[in-house]
Amino acid sequence: MINVRASLHVLSALLLFLAVSLVFPLAVSLIYGESTTVHYLTTIALAAGIGFLGYFTTKATVELRIKDGFIIVTMGWIIFAAFGALPFYLSSAIPSYTDSFFETMSGFTTTGASILTEIESLPHSLLFWRSFTHWLGGMGIILLSLAILPLLGIGGMQLFKAEVPGPSPDKLSPRIRETAKLLWFVYVLITVVETALLMFADMNLFDALCHSFGTVATGGFSTKNTSVAYYNSAWVDYILTAFMVIAGINFSLHYQCLNRRISYWKDEEFRFFIGIIFVATLIIGVDVFYLNDFNFSKSLRETLFQVVSIITTTGFGSADYETWSTTSQLVLFVLMFIGGCAGSTGGGMKVVRILVLIKFCRAELKRMLHPQAVLPVRLGERIVPRDIVSNIAGYFLIYMLLFAGGIIFMSSLGLDLPTSLGSVVATMSNIGPGLGGVGPTDNFAFIPTIGKWFLAFLMLVGRLEIFTVMVLLSRSFWRR
Amino acid sequence: MINVRASLHVLSALLLFLAVSLVFPLAVSLIYGESTTVHYLTTIALAAGIGFLGYFTTKATVELRIKDGFIIVTMGWIIFAAFGALPFYLSSAIPSYTDSFFETMSGFTTTGASILTEIESLPHSLLFWRSFTHWLGGMGIILLSLAILPLLGIGGMQLFKAEVPGPSPDKLSPRIRETAKLLWFVYVLITVVETALLMFADMNLFDALCHSFGTVATGGFSTKNTSVAYYNSAWVDYILTAFMVIAGINFSLHYQCLNRRISYWKDEEFRFFIGIIFVATLIIGVDVFYLNDFNFSKSLRETLFQVVSIITTTGFGSADYETWSTTSQLVLFVLMFIGGCAGSTGGGMKVVRILVLIKFCRAELKRMLHPQAVLPVRLGERIVPRDIVSNIAGYFLIYMLLFAGGIIFMSSLGLDLPTSLGSVVATMSNIGPGLGGVGPTDNFAFIPTIGKWFLAFLMLVGRLEIFTVMVLLSRSFWRR
Repeated sequence: MINVRASLHVLSALLLFLAVSLVFPLAVSLIYGESTTVHYLTTIALAAGIGFLGYFTTKATVELRIKDGFIIVTMGWIIFAAFGALPFYLSSAIPSYTDSFFETMSGFTTTGASILTEIESLPHSLLFWRSFTHWLGGMGIILLSLAILPLLGIGGMQLFKAEVPGPSPDKLSPRIRETAKLLWFVYVLITVVETALLMFADMNLFDALCHSFGTVATGGFSTKNTSVAYYNSAWVDYILTAFMVIAGINFSLHYQCLNRRISYWKDEEFRFFIGIIFVATLIIGVDVFYLNDFNFSKSLRETLFQVVSIITTTGFGSADYETWSTTSQLVLFVLMFIGGCAGSTGGGMKVVRILVLIKFCRAELKRMLHPQAVLPVRLGERIVPRDIVSNIAGYFLIYMLLFAGGIIFMSSLGLDLPTSLGSVVATMSNIGPGLGGVGPTDNFAFIPTIGKWFLAFLMLVGRLEIFTVMVLLSRSFWRR
Repeated sequence: MINVRASLHVLSALLLFLAVSLVFPLAVSLIYGESTTVHYLTTIALAAGIGFLGYFTTKATVELRIKDGFIIVTMGWIIFAAFGALPFYLSSAIPSYTDSFFETMSGFTTTGASILTEIESLPHSLLFWRSFTHWLGGMGIILLSLAILPLLGIGGMQLFKAEVPGPSPDKLSPRIRETAKLLWFVYVLITVVETALLMFADMNLFDALCHSFGTVATGGFSTKNTSVAYYNSAWVDYILTAFMVIAGINFSLHYQCLNRRISYWKDEEFRFFIGIIFVATLIIGVDVFYLNDFNFSKSLRETLFQVVSIITTTGFGSADYETWSTTSQLVLFVLMFIGGCAGSTGGGMKVVRILVLIKFCRAELKRMLHPQAVLPVRLGERIVPRDIVSNIAGYFLIYMLLFAGGIIFMSSLGLDLPTSLGSVVATMSNIGPGLGGVGPTDNFAFIPTIGKWFLAFLMLVGRLEIFTVMVLLSRSFWRR
């Protein structure tokens, strides 16, 4: 069954990693001489204490199995959010633990949904920690989607196993480690370049760093109440737009292209991703062009920024899209479901899944006319195995079921239709801002407590590609 | 390729059938001495003239192939709507041909969406014709779903080929004819019984007949402006509720049960259908119970009526569900997608497809844990072949794509979100009333012309199980 001790061993190691990560906001706190210092020390002591205790009383002697993988991944994220919430809670910057947990889960899942009504009054170190949880979460997601989930066989992720050089595929642990190192190198590189560029665009180091964390992780937490609109700078908008696109692309593809092995354009998912951004910008652009009194450059900038911010599930705000036409909002709503490319830090269903499903529909239509024909779904030059197509269809269905059930649940708490719809899609697709009462100029503070826990659960479910968590909730998982 | 002459032969025969059908409203017109008589004669002359011409200049010498099937079915419904609209248009009862076509397509597809703002002022014969188009459409649907679509291999309908005694399955035409005869016998029987019962509940013969047509076809056209609420009678409500349920059940199952070969309860789709009605009534009932000041019998009657009216896609109205809570409306919205059982006159996706998809999701989750296991989807005691499961998943996806595209299109005509959403689902699922501006107390009169044609197209697409029409729009259909 489940290797409890071996799983606890890994989870303890993760807790130690969290303790080390908290040294960064601690440093910020010391630099700015903030009173929050003690709360980081408390949290670090707690995490390190429990982590050490767990690590040395358990052993990684047995080989981890597939079931352990599901538990470790899910529990790992929960533990990060549970402990990571402590600095917010202990410092009373966020007085309720529910809210602190919500905010931290939103951070680590790179969602960016916030319960804060007043962001700028937070101490620098907490603002830093808030954005840093995005960055750490993004690292986790890249590792997860390109190295771990393919092993667990989740929703077609087998297709996107990172093709990086490494030891023989039989030895899993060293392979995962090697993959992680190479991809994280790309991740850190992108973060550094973006931070530098934002500083050229007159942002200070602190803001530039925090916004870079939010961008490369497609998280969307800002250090300003009005999000990116605060800077009111075309440079900032276009730099962020470019880096959101970069963060929405498969990091394994980045690695391969940086290594000059292939061109981006050869990747079918990439082409489709860019195509969707182009078409959506065109449709919405016409609308925004009218609203902005035919100011072309302003319209292009606003439209492109919002389209990219939504499809990559970042959720930075530079304009209030709720003032746009119903058609434009519906197009954005569809983008919320699509999300970024597989192997990126973006959430949602992932571009490649949509691509496979559209091809599958076409094949099914063709099969009406040629019932005997074998009509495989192709991606690039490869044939997608039937089992994987079927798994992706199952992913879509479960996504839709959860979506429908989620909306009904949120509405039963007394929320209106747009807010129920918006809060569920914004959390499940890890976007952040949604529609209605949780639109781009609102926040999640007023959601009832039980709703906040439910939405935090949806963030986790969405971030872990649905199956990882749903499997844990199935009866057959716990049956001998 | 396509056998043009043989297809035209069948379509001409259908036109002759329509001419004969028009004799019924002609008779009503004569009985009530209405001025519309001449318009029926004109339409009959036109339909019969073109029908005869076509019938005798073409020949049914060649065997019809699968492609001809798609064309005949789609064109058949379009021809019925196009000619059936003439009495409304010629008599100026509906001055615009667009509106007349919309109303008639809504009739023959058993949708029940109306552009009429004032129903009761129509001559009796037109009211009769309006309801009669439902009844004829229902006959067509039963034949289509239980005898024709299984042959064309549409969206899993192969599963529901009517199991009625008949000649050997090799000879298709006599088999279709035999199936039709037996099922239509059940259809007529149910109509007669319902009409009699409604007359016992103090409805006059005319109203009873029209409402029975609307019920057994799950159409929903009423002869009253306020629909069924007009009668304000518990008897009428419960009789209609019972017969809507009956009409939402597979007619092949009715036939088998009447023949005492099996019990309804042995059919898994039937059990699931009743289960959904039960659960939905429970959830919504609590809400309506509060709204009705804890009047139990009134609440039960209203809730059950609306739940059944929506899930069977009939669309009769006895209460304005737009005054109910968001949660209740969302539950009704989900029911709008589900629809009736396969082989019934109900629209929507069909209960059995939802059932198969849920089982498919469960199997996919299980496959995470046991990647090598073979996990077939079972329905009753049968295993559903993988090709059919895959086809049903494709059906769901195309439905969702069309739904999303449809809403975006309708919103681009200037409609708000609930109206766009409501008008698309109400027509695609062949319900009639939707939400927002096309809710249960509204009508479709104000929709822009292009929107009416688009919605009429959606009625057809939904009624013909999506694939039938979509195949015609695919490139590979017209390629040699």
